[in-house]
Amino acid sequence: MRLRCMCLVIHAPKDLRLDEQDAGEIGPGQVLVRVGFGGICGSDLHYFHHGGFGTVRIQQPMVLGHEVAGTVAAVADDVTTLKVGDRVAVNPSQPCEACKFCLEGLPNQCLELRFYGSAMRMPHVQGAFRDSLLCSAKQCHAIADGIPLAQAALAEPFSVGLHAVSRAGSLLGKRVLVSGCGPIGALAVAAARMHGAAEIVATDVVDEPLAVARALGADRTINVASDGGWVERHAADKGTFDVMLECSGNGRAFRDGLAVMRPRGTVVQLGLGGDVGLPQNLVVAKELSICGSFRFHAEFALAVRLINQRRVDLSPVITRSFPMTEAREAFELASDRKRAMKVLIDFAQPA
Amino acid sequence: MRLRCMCLVIHAPKDLRLDEQDAGEIGPGQVLVRVGFGGICGSDLHYFHHGGFGTVRIQQPMVLGHEVAGTVAAVADDVTTLKVGDRVAVNPSQPCEACKFCLEGLPNQCLELRFYGSAMRMPHVQGAFRDSLLCSAKQCHAIADGIPLAQAALAEPFSVGLHAVSRAGSLLGKRVLVSGCGPIGALAVAAARMHGAAEIVATDVVDEPLAVARALGADRTINVASDGGWVERHAADKGTFDVMLECSGNGRAFRDGLAVMRPRGTVVQLGLGGDVGLPQNLVVAKELSICGSFRFHAEFALAVRLINQRRVDLSPVITRSFPMTEAREAFELASDRKRAMKVLIDFAQPA
Amino acid sequence: MRLRCMCLVIHAPKDLRLDEQDAGEIGPGQVLVRVGFGGICGSDLHYFHHGGFGTVRIQQPMVLGHEVAGTVAAVADDVTTLKVGDRVAVNPSQPCEACKFCLEGLPNQCLELRFYGSAMRMPHVQGAFRDSLLCSAKQCHAIADGIPLAQAALAEPFSVGLHAVSRAGSLLGKRVLVSGCGPIGALAVAAARMHGAAEIVATDVVDEPLAVARALGADRTINVASDGGWVERHAADKGTFDVMLECSGNGRAFRDGLAVMRPRGTVVQLGLGGDVGLPQNLVVAKELSICGSFRFHAEFALAVRLINQRRVDLSPVITRSFPMTEAREAFELASDRKRAMKVLIDFAQPA
Amino acid sequence: MRLRCMCLVIHAPKDLRLDEQDAGEIGPGQVLVRVGFGGICGSDLHYFHHGGFGTVRIQQPMVLGHEVAGTVAAVADDVTTLKVGDRVAVNPSQPCEACKFCLEGLPNQCLELRFYGSAMRMPHVQGAFRDSLLCSAKQCHAIADGIPLAQAALAEPFSVGLHAVSRAGSLLGKRVLVSGCGPIGALAVAAARMHGAAEIVATDVVDEPLAVARALGADRTINVASDGGWVERHAADKGTFDVMLECSGNGRAFRDGLAVMRPRGTVVQLGLGGDVGLPQNLVVAKELSICGSFRFHAEFALAVRLINQRRVDLSPVITRSFPMTEAREAFELASDRKRAMKVLIDFAQPA
Repeated sequence: MRLRCMCLVIHAPKDLRLDEQDAGEIGPGQVLVRVGFGGICGSDLHYFHHGGFGTVRIQQPMVLGHEVAGTVAAVADDVTTLKVGDRVAVNPSQPCEACKFCLEGLPNQCLELRFYGSAMRMPHVQGAFRDSLLCSAKQCHAIADGIPLAQAALAEPFSVGLHAVSRAGSLLGKRVLVSGCGPIGALAVAAARMHGAAEIVATDVVDEPLAVARALGADRTINVASDGGWVERHAADKGTFDVMLECSGNGRAFRDGLAVMRPRGTVVQLGLGGDVGLPQNLVVAKELSICGSFRFHAEFALAVRLINQRRVDLSPVITRSFPMTEAREAFELASDRKRAMKVLIDFAQPA
Repeated sequence: MRLRCMCLVIHAPKDLRLDEQDAGEIGPGQVLVRVGFGGICGSDLHYFHHGGFGTVRIQQPMVLGHEVAGTVAAVADDVTTLKVGDRVAVNPSQPCEACKFCLEGLPNQCLELRFYGSAMRMPHVQGAFRDSLLCSAKQCHAIADGIPLAQAALAEPFSVGLHAVSRAGSLLGKRVLVSGCGPIGALAVAAARMHGAAEIVATDVVDEPLAVARALGADRTINVASDGGWVERHAADKGTFDVMLECSGNGRAFRDGLAVMRPRGTVVQLGLGGDVGLPQNLVVAKELSICGSFRFHAEFALAVRLINQRRVDLSPVITRSFPMTEAREAFELASDRKRAMKVLIDFAQPA
Repeated sequence: MRLRCMCLVIHAPKDLRLDEQDAGEIGPGQVLVRVGFGGICGSDLHYFHHGGFGTVRIQQPMVLGHEVAGTVAAVADDVTTLKVGDRVAVNPSQPCEACKFCLEGLPNQCLELRFYGSAMRMPHVQGAFRDSLLCSAKQCHAIADGIPLAQAALAEPFSVGLHAVSRAGSLLGKRVLVSGCGPIGALAVAAARMHGAAEIVATDVVDEPLAVARALGADRTINVASDGGWVERHAADKGTFDVMLECSGNGRAFRDGLAVMRPRGTVVQLGLGGDVGLPQNLVVAKELSICGSFRFHAEFALAVRLINQRRVDLSPVITRSFPMTEAREAFELASDRKRAMKVLIDFAQPA
Repeated sequence: MRLRCMCLVIHAPKDLRLDEQDAGEIGPGQVLVRVGFGGICGSDLHYFHHGGFGTVRIQQPMVLGHEVAGTVAAVADDVTTLKVGDRVAVNPSQPCEACKFCLEGLPNQCLELRFYGSAMRMPHVQGAFRDSLLCSAKQCHAIADGIPLAQAALAEPFSVGLHAVSRAGSLLGKRVLVSGCGPIGALAVAAARMHGAAEIVATDVVDEPLAVARALGADRTINVASDGGWVERHAADKGTFDVMLECSGNGRAFRDGLAVMRPRGTVVQLGLGGDVGLPQNLVVAKELSICGSFRFHAEFALAVRLINQRRVDLSPVITRSFPMTEAREAFELASDRKRAMKVLIDFAQPA
């Protein structure tokens, strides 16, 4: 018996539809997950508004979404690690485990990486914004009793924050600047706190996300749009911060951040943007390091573990959820930085 | 008795004079060095042509020069490590050994760093382009018998290359791209070879420096002005090089280099330039690291040791030398990348 | 006017006296601290019971103690960072800031290190178990309102734990084994938790310290005296733990720990002991790293900050305190691992 | 048609025979190598003299040998990277490329590692001391024209030295002590030189290997059996050496080495031995690191490249070669440290 499922499909910019699709047939090593919640990510918004970003464009209809959690509804005969009824967060990343980068321990650089809801490859990798998802049991990480599925759906973006702090090396005792406090920035604050940062200062150009950053562990926040003197105050003696987690992708934030970094400081770049100006002489004179951070790998399991142990409370990041049928409203709200952080779609809720 | 000496003084752009100055009086811990050769550095050329670079401008007459070697002519009574007649390379860098960066083991980031021939501080730190130099015995590193003083004068720029490869971490077995093969780039090639690089590819836009890079250890060289396809050839499978030593300060070289770096590769930025465009999404997606490298510290002693042991032959970098009285001709030749690599001034040669 | 103070002086093994001494005169940069509490450390116990450890022996009467917190009672005219009434934790470590190790950023390896209550140098460095302590303002770190002085006295041993986890590199997501749960082991558990460890397993041969380890953040504890199968259970697939913090100094604990480490795991050795057997072939085959950790440096300020921010609650480590006049009872209790973790002496309490 | 070949088989301690065996049939991805030379390794000697080492014992007849080079005699239809007549060094290590350690980039820790001539697994992995060897094309690394096959057979032990220096981190400018100058020690000297060590001091208890160490790049050698004062001379100011490559597996060499290491120095343990005494307090006080180094992985390709480029001349390590029929004499000679470094067996030479 073939399964049917309802999916959120982007057909063209702004053309988001709820389509019924064949869900495939459960195969060896697989489970069927009844999706509970799915979080809308910045890349989903880019597909929705512009049909893609950079050189990546949708060339065929594609199911969106890669931040989901749900309940196991069926398991293949050979699956022993999960049973029907288990609640799980689903890792959207499927490295090939055979290419040179996988064999170097860099699966997030896999030459054949399949990542849910991504138009980088052709045919596109279909996403997880659907009521039923057939996936590998290996992708499913069990959620502890009492953890709401909505929070479990944050495991994926929290993994991104954890990967970024891992790229920064040890944060123990470090002064950390987080620039840009959208969902990723706010979760990076939580990750930095978890990693032992001594002080976390978060910046943004609007106030609302800064309040969430404080709730997730920022010691201080600065609205850099209204506080013109912050750079000068933090630039004395060659700078204040050991580490910057650059989550804005904004050229001004990047450059101001370099000015307040201490010599030998590390900038982890997570935010996607376009070309920004790099002041080479400053990078040379202060011997700064700028390191890219791309997605995650082992950090997904860690994110789930930390959520399960209640060592982090990520709930302040969640703005609200919408039923599947109101997905367009969800995408519109998620696009407004003043009103929304993480917006979820509830795939279990009947229309 | 006060000492007199002849000095090469920059008074204004293009206004380079041979002035007689008081050389000071030998104090505790000091030696008097009869300077043999001094190498003209890019910063000397900037002072000569433009009166400075970036925000640094000469505001008072300043003796140029910081790459010198000579012969000890007198030693203070309390100096036991050197004797008259010793030939030495002189370290132009004098950290305070008291500020927080000195106490963190980062003397090249010293808040009170004194560096010969630099207009960064006011009053400026006078340079070493003079026939007699009074300096601390600690700054003097003995040169082995048979090593020409002209080669010893390369200890300073070679230190810059060694510091850069040290910033890259271990090069053992790595593929290294060196972009920009002026004196610093060519000496960075030698440093990379010394550090165990498996393959070194050097690039430039003119052919002459590439020949020198080959002489210093580059396995292959590419004239990127005439070979349009080099980026595409080296960008397959996410890129070829583990490490780039960016010695050009040129935006195009920087960007092309990022395109041919492997995931997790490290770009060491030595070249000074202005603002260059940084493709953030590429840095993120390949998780590249860009690290500034500024001058040197412990590497000066290492440079002298490697030269003394004849483990490197840096002589191909030397174009020719001029007597002090022809300093202007020396500066003009040093400014022509097609005709000159390192140009020296011979302070011992009578006019 | 010369100051007088009461000091706890070790004259010979078991010969601990409360002596009145001249406290010196307040000099430039100094403050007078009215000591509140002092924690008894393992080295204090070694002096008390055996007159020293290893090759270190008391050769003259020596004031013990290096874990103290108190209240500023006077400040030199030139001190602007502290005022009378400030409550402070006192850093007992005074590197020379001039030797080669200080200038390499390794002040805990200082060739002329002065550390309170240590017989390593001759004359010995007198300790801080006294009611009044004259020290440099730089050694004093302000304690936040509401933090009991008894907890502030834990800043020093907590620094030791923080230095150890810093030696381990990033702990984010790591599985950590802590062997030996005396005060240092228990505080190392707290430090590992602070640094993002995913799972912390603590071991000891008695139950009482394990309960404290759990209170400070251990996920699981194992009494290795009663659980004979623990090594086998954790040795499968070449081992379970990424990091071991070896706080026992015991040969059996060390060897068992190596057996349960994963390949490329890191053992941080804090515990002092004698010679232990090292199975070279195991170290080679699993490519383990064993790293010594000695005292602390920057971690002292971090310890105070974390205590001040209430990000750690170290109070479960404190067993009880005794007035100065009952110091002998305090030392006897502190020597009993079944009954005591950290025992404090209250220098403010009248006899 | 099945291939036959002559193999050197260990049946029991001292029972080494030249047996004719079925060589198998060439399969997809495979090549047939006509073996030229095979080097006798310490583990071969252990099987020969004692039937194994530690807990590893031969339980069935096993072909010895894992250091071989030869000429391609046949290739499978699907092999495009090699052709008949190519001369190759053969990598004896075959990780599974599927276990967790392979996917972490640690193939030398593979849970299912197959390594030529090893009795660790049951059935044993048959070795490469044979005139014809069927192996994967991936294991074969082409040798440059003019490089003797005897030198190419050193690629494997040289890889071990390269892996060890890679475990030490960057050696640029470091002072390196190599203890134990058998073939591995001598090749570790060459590797340290290649990696930029500033000074290499090699020690042994007999003079003959020290002469080879000098030929491979040691700056100084010390016969520690006859020079009783060497430890004291190098222990001043907390020690002289940044790195020790411990190749002896000897407890005295290990302990003396720790005494002459600088604070924060790194000991790379390559030598296999039994249990040695570890002075914990010294490791703690100087914060030394002791790191195991096991075999190699990427270093095999690097070793071949360095040999091909003639950047190293490893020939001084070779003592002499014997025809297959005189294998017993070869093993006896190889067992005498005063007379032999690397002894080769010539599998191409008719009896």
